[in-house]
Amino acid sequence: MSDVPVTHTITSRRAFLRGGALAAVSLPSAATVLASCVQTPAAAATKAPVPAVPPAKTPLQRADEMDAMHEQGIKAFPAKTAGKGNQLMQPRMDGSVKVYDLTAAVTDWEVEPGKIVHAWTYNGQVPGPQIRVREGDRVRVNLINNLPESTVIHFHGLEVPNDQDGVPFITQPPVKPGGKFTYEFTVPNSGSHMYHSHHNATKQVGMGLLGAFIVEPRDLSHEPQADVDYVMILNDSMSGYTLNGKGFPATEPVVAKRGQTVRIRFMNEGMMIHPMHLHGMHMTVIAKDGWAQPSPWKCDTLNIAPGDRWDVLIHANNPGTWAFHCHILAHAESEHGMFGMVTALVVT
Amino acid sequence: MSDVPVTHTITSRRAFLRGGALAAVSLPSAATVLASCVQTPAAAATKAPVPAVPPAKTPLQRADEMDAMHEQGIKAFPAKTAGKGNQLMQPRMDGSVKVYDLTAAVTDWEVEPGKIVHAWTYNGQVPGPQIRVREGDRVRVNLINNLPESTVIHFHGLEVPNDQDGVPFITQPPVKPGGKFTYEFTVPNSGSHMYHSHHNATKQVGMGLLGAFIVEPRDLSHEPQADVDYVMILNDSMSGYTLNGKGFPATEPVVAKRGQTVRIRFMNEGMMIHPMHLHGMHMTVIAKDGWAQPSPWKCDTLNIAPGDRWDVLIHANNPGTWAFHCHILAHAESEHGMFGMVTALVVT
Amino acid sequence: MSDVPVTHTITSRRAFLRGGALAAVSLPSAATVLASCVQTPAAAATKAPVPAVPPAKTPLQRADEMDAMHEQGIKAFPAKTAGKGNQLMQPRMDGSVKVYDLTAAVTDWEVEPGKIVHAWTYNGQVPGPQIRVREGDRVRVNLINNLPESTVIHFHGLEVPNDQDGVPFITQPPVKPGGKFTYEFTVPNSGSHMYHSHHNATKQVGMGLLGAFIVEPRDLSHEPQADVDYVMILNDSMSGYTLNGKGFPATEPVVAKRGQTVRIRFMNEGMMIHPMHLHGMHMTVIAKDGWAQPSPWKCDTLNIAPGDRWDVLIHANNPGTWAFHCHILAHAESEHGMFGMVTALVVT
Repeated sequence: MSDVPVTHTITSRRAFLRGGALAAVSLPSAATVLASCVQTPAAAATKAPVPAVPPAKTPLQRADEMDAMHEQGIKAFPAKTAGKGNQLMQPRMDGSVKVYDLTAAVTDWEVEPGKIVHAWTYNGQVPGPQIRVREGDRVRVNLINNLPESTVIHFHGLEVPNDQDGVPFITQPPVKPGGKFTYEFTVPNSGSHMYHSHHNATKQVGMGLLGAFIVEPRDLSHEPQADVDYVMILNDSMSGYTLNGKGFPATEPVVAKRGQTVRIRFMNEGMMIHPMHLHGMHMTVIAKDGWAQPSPWKCDTLNIAPGDRWDVLIHANNPGTWAFHCHILAHAESEHGMFGMVTALVVT
Repeated sequence: MSDVPVTHTITSRRAFLRGGALAAVSLPSAATVLASCVQTPAAAATKAPVPAVPPAKTPLQRADEMDAMHEQGIKAFPAKTAGKGNQLMQPRMDGSVKVYDLTAAVTDWEVEPGKIVHAWTYNGQVPGPQIRVREGDRVRVNLINNLPESTVIHFHGLEVPNDQDGVPFITQPPVKPGGKFTYEFTVPNSGSHMYHSHHNATKQVGMGLLGAFIVEPRDLSHEPQADVDYVMILNDSMSGYTLNGKGFPATEPVVAKRGQTVRIRFMNEGMMIHPMHLHGMHMTVIAKDGWAQPSPWKCDTLNIAPGDRWDVLIHANNPGTWAFHCHILAHAESEHGMFGMVTALVVT
Repeated sequence: MSDVPVTHTITSRRAFLRGGALAAVSLPSAATVLASCVQTPAAAATKAPVPAVPPAKTPLQRADEMDAMHEQGIKAFPAKTAGKGNQLMQPRMDGSVKVYDLTAAVTDWEVEPGKIVHAWTYNGQVPGPQIRVREGDRVRVNLINNLPESTVIHFHGLEVPNDQDGVPFITQPPVKPGGKFTYEFTVPNSGSHMYHSHHNATKQVGMGLLGAFIVEPRDLSHEPQADVDYVMILNDSMSGYTLNGKGFPATEPVVAKRGQTVRIRFMNEGMMIHPMHLHGMHMTVIAKDGWAQPSPWKCDTLNIAPGDRWDVLIHANNPGTWAFHCHILAHAESEHGMFGMVTALVVT
């Protein structure tokens, strides 16, 4: 159908993705412009002769080329990459205390096939390991800092005692490179919360120092029944636009059987809003920042701002593979196909 | 009042608007900067001689000049332009099936007086024709693609069967240039929804491939009574900041008689949030994405994110012409006067 | 601990803050890039000889340097600066009419220690004086325009008669430099509202022409009891990211005794969203734009869009000094420490 070899098309798409999702909307950097300004006479003289003009492509040929790149992305989904973030972490028990050891370090992280970034991670994962405890549990978090900068952990949303809040020079000294620090508290409130760096955090959270801290309520009688409970952490930093540390097509589909109830816990650790849109079914919003909404309400597009957590329920009653993506379209699709904040809800 | 001829002032304002609303907040492109970097000695030598310095203007003179541009914009409102989008479309009936033929094509579109863009349209309109049906109706949409790219239609918010969802390579092949595709479904849920391209959509929706898909509920007993029912689609792409495809002063005022109830159906097809602010009266928020809010709530500024639809009621009890605009002020006003996402609610 | 003298570190931090908070996220301007493009042979020839390479710093040394800057900012909080905005204004009484004289003028404004901007102010304050009246009060506002541009005042959220709405050429002529205008109305609705320029407003509001207009309801029986009632106006314009006209560390802490109830009235007069995040306690959202939320709801991060007002209650039950900041981290922290939209809730 196309006069462009498929392998070439694939290469273009890969090269595009490797360049980083954010590049799709980036502005010229000073360096780029400067480099373009500089042209020595020698460089000008060694320019290649003008090649013979190839025959112009028809709109259909160009459409076929574009469509092949789009198809390639969809067919690759879910693409395999090294590393998986947001893995449920089992605590060590010290008597009745649940102990979590979190080592912050620089780690190569594959965001999409072939796109490797030097992430800053907890235990080698982006997002860091998922912590799941219960209201009233005694929890100890040992932070080991193997980063080249000082760091701390803030438990975003947890109403811990002030000296466990993780803000340098307000509640504790920063933890130096090579240093350690222990947080310990009784989990005071339930809900979908987060932990992340609160030191040089524009950089450190952007580099990957973030994770989910889920607290089940002591009283489960008001807790909604869900067959699938899925944490989806949004980010928009040095890894591009990501869901749980991966960009499409390396994102993970959410899978449910027809008739099941899916709970999604959206968390935004980025710098921009991301209105997440689900195709084919609606979402019932049940909680904000871990607090039950007094009157759950329905939508298909939910605007999630930095620092927000929103819990929604989906009644998976419409079978098929459904696109599920940020509706700022530039965070989800380019001329080369879908990328970034795109996944699917698969109802079998 | 001013020592600058009025015709000159008008020209400046027009030239500004012609340049595009988005230019008001744009950053220098690489091309611009590069062009500025390049200056040959010859160009420098042919520079015009320095003109005699005109007498400095007083603050009052400069204020008069600025005010004249502002007045010009207001006095021009609502300015006539060629083309009107979002026009209610009557279906053809094929038995009991409501049939809508939508032809996607490139069309010159006048956004503001004299500002013509090469829009991508359904049936020559931006937004495309307004589709209004009822829950349970059988609907057929014939898409004819006269664009130079493949395209598809996604029915945003409608819980249609998967194969009618309009996502290339997930639910259907893209519709090639010159091709056709037929969607057909029984309308499953009511509310304020949208239809738009879901292929290369950052570009295609930005160029104009979008429209309203309104579904009245089968049971009207819970439907609020409204004397005026108005769809307002926000966009922020190649046409600049627009309401229903037009920028101020070519936007359309919403008109109501004192005592009437106005229903506005806000829809955001852009890439940015737009907090819409109404002067003089408040809005009661009754639905999100077509789903009734369990507890309607009041506001005068409503933050509308990309992909969102919000339905509000306004009790038009305060007579006069009231500004109604995006409160990101850079989307609504410049030194040259109001532009972009500005209209008025006129209560007579 | 560090091999860099502390005084040098302070200077760096000050210089950074002086450069403006927004610079932390700014893109290269055309001017910057152009300047970099230009290099005469003479300039190149006079370059200093390459200095001897100093011994490389260890990660710990660099961490100590960074941490010292962070500590310096925290220790300086709340830093003294000249001028305080948002001060409660006592009206003159003319019979039963409450009279407020507001003079708009250019005023030097100290945003942070040593960072002075040429603000446009009401009565020399950014935000302008806080107006607090009661529903049904008769209010007169005399605007005296000592600015070099025309201006007007719009009472954002107040459902005043049309001719008091302050929109040039729709409801009144602009008030020329040196001119005066009187607004007078019976306060029609209660809640947390604002007043600001509505002429060339992208510039004028950005420069500082804004203030709070708080209206207590006539019927206080539904009004929540609050021990502390605090207005927090967000802005993101020429002064950088500010809370009540000041950037961290010159922002003002909110102070409460343990067990007290704090009411915060958030108002966004900027161009960007600001999701405000409180540590250690949650917020109960009770009103939007002055209208009671039918079902108050809880959160710890509240997304505040331009033009929005949100009223929240905080039960100050967790003792300590708690960070309270915009969770778009680039509005709150850089490599040099916290800046901009950061303050604290101090529970004693």
